Amino acid sequence: MLKVIAQDFIKPEHVDAVLPLYRELVAKTRQEEHCIAYDLFIDQKDPGHFVFIEAWPDRASLDAHCSTEHFKRLVPQIDAYQRQPSSYILMDSFEA
Amino acid sequence: MLKVIAQDFIKPEHVDAVLPLYRELVAKTRQEEHCIAYDLFIDQKDPGHFVFIEAWPDRASLDAHCSTEHFKRLVPQIDAYQRQPSSYILMDSFEA
Repeated sequence: MLKVIAQDFIKPEHVDAVLPLYRELVAKTRQEEHCIAYDLFIDQKDPGHFVFIEAWPDRASLDAHCSTEHFKRLVPQIDAYQRQPSSYILMDSFEA
Repeated sequence: MLKVIAQDFIKPEHVDAVLPLYRELVAKTRQEEHCIAYDLFIDQKDPGHFVFIEAWPDRASLDAHCSTEHFKRLVPQIDAYQRQPSSYILMDSFEA
């Protein structure tokens, strides 16, 4: 399983504008056939810092997600309100 | 629910030394009464970048975790192998 943390940094004055975009992105992504988890969180210290915690079966499923109509339409709209570039961490499970 | 991302950055030559410490920390923490989730991941691009994704009922439960015997014993041992300070993000769920 591939675990992903994706972090967006939105200008404070535009947080209200991105909320419906995130809402649609989360709803549509959760309907993707291979989506295991796609949960969005907000930093308690920074209301413009949005953090996705995702799980996908493999890299191909993540790539397919990034090629969906909803991703290609909504992410550029969200990115227009960024104050700094997004960051991504792709991770493997630690076998405890 | 309180979601937490905690990131450790370990010197590459000491990764092997921290693995058993992480293993014990994960096992003991999952036995804590109020622990909802405590999962450890490794950055695919950086084998010294360890990422905890945690869930707790509230801040008091997280604070109690940080006061346990296993946390107070193991975390300083892990930190001795750090190449840079740990980072923490405390988050609320985005209500989609």
